[in-house]
Amino acid sequence: MANYHKLDGKVVQELKDIANKLRIHSISSTQVAKSGHPTSCASIAEILSVLFFNTMRYKVSAPRDPSSDRFVLSKGHAAPALYAAWAEAGLFPVSDLNNLRKLGSDLEGHPTPRLNFIDVGTGSLGQGLAIANGMAYVGKNYDKASYRVYCLVGDGESAEGSIWESVHFASYYKLDNLCLIFDVNRLGQSEPTSLGHDVDTYRKRLEAFGFHAIVVDGHDVEELNKAFHTAATTKGKPTAVVAKTLKGKNFPKIEDLENWHGKPLGEHSDKIISHLKGMIKNAGPLQVHPQKPLKDDAFPVDITNIKLSSPPAYKIGDSLATRVAYGTALVKIAQTNPRVIALDGDMKNSTFSENLKKFDASRYIECFIAEQSLVGTAIGAACRDRTVPFVSTFATFFTRAFDQIRMGAISQTNVNFVGSHCGVSIGEDGPSQMGLEDLAMFRSIPGSTIFYPADAVSTERAVELAANTKGITFIRINRPNTTVIYPNDHVFAVGKAEVVRSNPKDQLVIIGAGITLQEAITASKKLSAVGIGARVIDPFTVKPLDKNTIIENIKEVGGRAIVVEDHYFEGGLGEAVLSATAMERNIIVKHIAVPRVPRSGPPAALLDRYGLSADHIVTAAQEILKM
Amino acid sequence: MANYHKLDGKVVQELKDIANKLRIHSISSTQVAKSGHPTSCASIAEILSVLFFNTMRYKVSAPRDPSSDRFVLSKGHAAPALYAAWAEAGLFPVSDLNNLRKLGSDLEGHPTPRLNFIDVGTGSLGQGLAIANGMAYVGKNYDKASYRVYCLVGDGESAEGSIWESVHFASYYKLDNLCLIFDVNRLGQSEPTSLGHDVDTYRKRLEAFGFHAIVVDGHDVEELNKAFHTAATTKGKPTAVVAKTLKGKNFPKIEDLENWHGKPLGEHSDKIISHLKGMIKNAGPLQVHPQKPLKDDAFPVDITNIKLSSPPAYKIGDSLATRVAYGTALVKIAQTNPRVIALDGDMKNSTFSENLKKFDASRYIECFIAEQSLVGTAIGAACRDRTVPFVSTFATFFTRAFDQIRMGAISQTNVNFVGSHCGVSIGEDGPSQMGLEDLAMFRSIPGSTIFYPADAVSTERAVELAANTKGITFIRINRPNTTVIYPNDHVFAVGKAEVVRSNPKDQLVIIGAGITLQEAITASKKLSAVGIGARVIDPFTVKPLDKNTIIENIKEVGGRAIVVEDHYFEGGLGEAVLSATAMERNIIVKHIAVPRVPRSGPPAALLDRYGLSADHIVTAAQEILKM
Repeated sequence: MANYHKLDGKVVQELKDIANKLRIHSISSTQVAKSGHPTSCASIAEILSVLFFNTMRYKVSAPRDPSSDRFVLSKGHAAPALYAAWAEAGLFPVSDLNNLRKLGSDLEGHPTPRLNFIDVGTGSLGQGLAIANGMAYVGKNYDKASYRVYCLVGDGESAEGSIWESVHFASYYKLDNLCLIFDVNRLGQSEPTSLGHDVDTYRKRLEAFGFHAIVVDGHDVEELNKAFHTAATTKGKPTAVVAKTLKGKNFPKIEDLENWHGKPLGEHSDKIISHLKGMIKNAGPLQVHPQKPLKDDAFPVDITNIKLSSPPAYKIGDSLATRVAYGTALVKIAQTNPRVIALDGDMKNSTFSENLKKFDASRYIECFIAEQSLVGTAIGAACRDRTVPFVSTFATFFTRAFDQIRMGAISQTNVNFVGSHCGVSIGEDGPSQMGLEDLAMFRSIPGSTIFYPADAVSTERAVELAANTKGITFIRINRPNTTVIYPNDHVFAVGKAEVVRSNPKDQLVIIGAGITLQEAITASKKLSAVGIGARVIDPFTVKPLDKNTIIENIKEVGGRAIVVEDHYFEGGLGEAVLSATAMERNIIVKHIAVPRVPRSGPPAALLDRYGLSADHIVTAAQEILKM
Repeated sequence: MANYHKLDGKVVQELKDIANKLRIHSISSTQVAKSGHPTSCASIAEILSVLFFNTMRYKVSAPRDPSSDRFVLSKGHAAPALYAAWAEAGLFPVSDLNNLRKLGSDLEGHPTPRLNFIDVGTGSLGQGLAIANGMAYVGKNYDKASYRVYCLVGDGESAEGSIWESVHFASYYKLDNLCLIFDVNRLGQSEPTSLGHDVDTYRKRLEAFGFHAIVVDGHDVEELNKAFHTAATTKGKPTAVVAKTLKGKNFPKIEDLENWHGKPLGEHSDKIISHLKGMIKNAGPLQVHPQKPLKDDAFPVDITNIKLSSPPAYKIGDSLATRVAYGTALVKIAQTNPRVIALDGDMKNSTFSENLKKFDASRYIECFIAEQSLVGTAIGAACRDRTVPFVSTFATFFTRAFDQIRMGAISQTNVNFVGSHCGVSIGEDGPSQMGLEDLAMFRSIPGSTIFYPADAVSTERAVELAANTKGITFIRINRPNTTVIYPNDHVFAVGKAEVVRSNPKDQLVIIGAGITLQEAITASKKLSAVGIGARVIDPFTVKPLDKNTIIENIKEVGGRAIVVEDHYFEGGLGEAVLSATAMERNIIVKHIAVPRVPRSGPPAALLDRYGLSADHIVTAAQEILKM
């Protein structure tokens, strides 16, 4: 093992002391909070001590410094120990730790980026490694910098399949700047984990998945130090340190026992704190200190003000799928900003994200059929504003990663999601492939922005706007062709609806989006032929919805509206409109959507069978005018 | 290998012939349909031929016979080959295969249980094995019958973490009645899989995860037959047959080539069909036939008319959490029906599903921290009406399995989901643990029934009703205590709201549920003290919502309503009410919900901070009366 120097005896003792200090802080802060997970902190105390005070290179004063090593605490419930490590490192006073879990304190029950030393929210288990992968991929391939990424995973959460998706990703992409640590403390929440202390099985699984795996005593600071050194010098594959630990380590009568998950130590606290203090040799100022990065080699990047390299270039009346326009726009923004990247789950020839791969293969990350890894990797790649990720797959397959997307909002991520093959209009592949609940899902994400462009021009602009929009964005794109209805120079904006057909004598409003906007336009023309004026509105963004335009127009026509969407009834465009008009008297809204699990069939036939076609809209219009 | 007899030469040829017939059917049916995945069918033709005509024991005339072997095609896009196998086996005329993907035909693009020989819908990848696990667990532990379960997984989809969760489950529970087949055909949709033909790595991974793994040439019927025999005689662990195959096998100039995923063969069809016909030795009636089960040893079970063993026994004014009442009710229905089971993801001491484990450990299945496996296993366990599963975890963690739940609806499953720790009222653990989008998710599931009981009495009845309700049910339960408001003999029904406070002079309606119903009652009392009559409605089921009761009452009080829910604004109770009142003029609805990512803090403080407390409802009531 090249260049490995054994730790000086004093340093060893200091790292042991720090570990016990972290334990003490974890006990006392959860005791004050009256809730929390001190035993889960105890098992990782030496791991954190060695990482934060010996191995990792970072700037305490600038936690998000781009050249610093990254640390992801996947087992977020051990937050008190992590907070304590940063406090001991000097970022904030140790006394602040007693604000843990108080309303108004950023030292929450689980870590969130409200804290400047946290890159991503954790607490839903099994998600940290995918995020670490994203960071490591960026570090190795885009930043080409020397920072390393450490991810600490609990053994309980390693039952999550997302962990194994991510283990595979890391080995496939040879992320040797990544070090995974498994905290094998044997005990889950309600019973022992399925593998207990069988570290050999963990090792075998990790090796079979392509990792360099090292088993250590997770409470031995020298073994840990050596393992992290080995990890740093192992090239061509990521390293996993399988740390055998004890839950509640050094907590007499609690250590390694069941029924101590997620509980402050209560009456035992004082005695155990005394016991821990007795183990500490140096109670004075720390003798070891965090090490700064060797090189400031992750250079600043600019991801602001991203533009299409050229405006949309279509003719009104052209017929093409919005997914095709997505592929075009993705390349156009990539041409103007080198940090635009795309990730996909083996659907790139359906979503047209392959266009970016063809333009610049280095900026396309194939995540294979593993949507949780796909989404998590993108969230990691977006951290510290290093890249602008566009993540695509079939809209419905994002349901596979709803938990990751939900956590993405807590992580304040700026990832852009692009879902193709929405609705029954995909046709013969049938219901398993149809996005019919994706709007409900993405609408429920706090702060999300949802684009649902109806043609190629608006799709290109949606992509451009999404790239510059903070928070999670979702662009819903169609499989079948739609007609270009907007001129190339039309100006779109988030939260600005477009009135696409209008006449002062209109008697009702029809709101459609994507494929159903096209049906709405056809319906309006048919209605026009029988003397009924139907105004047509394209919301462009489903969230935020242009409440004013919608309400004003519905009022102008006499209070009648139809909303038609290729989605189930719940949580989509229809309910967005109903929310917008909730406080309006004298508005009635007829909602047309997919009423049940659909079948395979040709797209047009399905639109008709499930009530979304122009003819059905015409009938609904005639009916609502009687009400 | 005990009792293994080599196949007779004629049988070998016949199985080869059948495989090529399946290929021909897959080509011609997708050719007629103008879409589909013939090359993905070709790689599994021998696997299906050997399984359906030599290995499996089942009744062609009664595909859902309880004693028959089960087969799950996890790679659902290979449906045409599966349909062809059943047609060749004699279930329906081979000529019907040309109805593939036609609107109205049950031979859809991906399999669904609209077909009597399909137990579950597949097509969203990586989900079949968890379902097979559920079937195998029931076969081994509840039915104690001799049927075996076969699950065919594609190599592309084996990148899904859900597969590895399920592999672990199967080995942990020693499901030796399960045989997993990996179809390693090397090619994904848009590029080769990450492992290509590296069958040795698949073997190592499966062995590390506790399987008996056998690598075979997936086009050699004798090797396959031998492997399936070995699987059947291997005790104490499940067996995986790793079949090295070629995508488009026996399709000249297409076999093993890229860019042939999901495409009919077009102009190549006729030539390739001729080629395949030339390989068939016996073009006449089949010489081998499916084998019936050796024993009819899976006995009928009755899962109808399930009742609580005793009525709720609380006092009005008692204070306890609905999650506690859930645990009580679960045991009560288990006492009256031996097929009631519970599954949980290491949260049983928080959700109180542990009560069933304490009552009868055999009917509790610990799925550890792997929610996709948890949900999939339950769907498998519910198949063929063998059990009544109740699946519990924190409400928000069901987002991890949204795709599985969505597919559950396509599978026509009857699984009951129970989500605890919903909303900000969980308190200090913070946003990662709060269910704030679970109603949006479950509402978007077609045919779902959503219970949101406010007290212990209604919770017990919700559990009883859920057990007897077809389709997916979801019961949303609270962490903190709520006050018992219903008498023990109160009769609840799906779709029947309860008016819990009412006066002829009421001026508005407040609709709350769960914890917010309690706030609504308090608010109504406070409003009463200042001379404002506020009627309070408990929807009991959010879906179906009791539209009539809600509209009638809002009209009666003059058209004003407040909906307050511990959930984000989108897709929950508020939008359900807005959908119910969409076509009503003169109704305005003020919606109160959680407006952004919440923080850690004490439950009551959080309810107040995010606008859900009684005081905020009072203010909203005073404001809406001015409008």
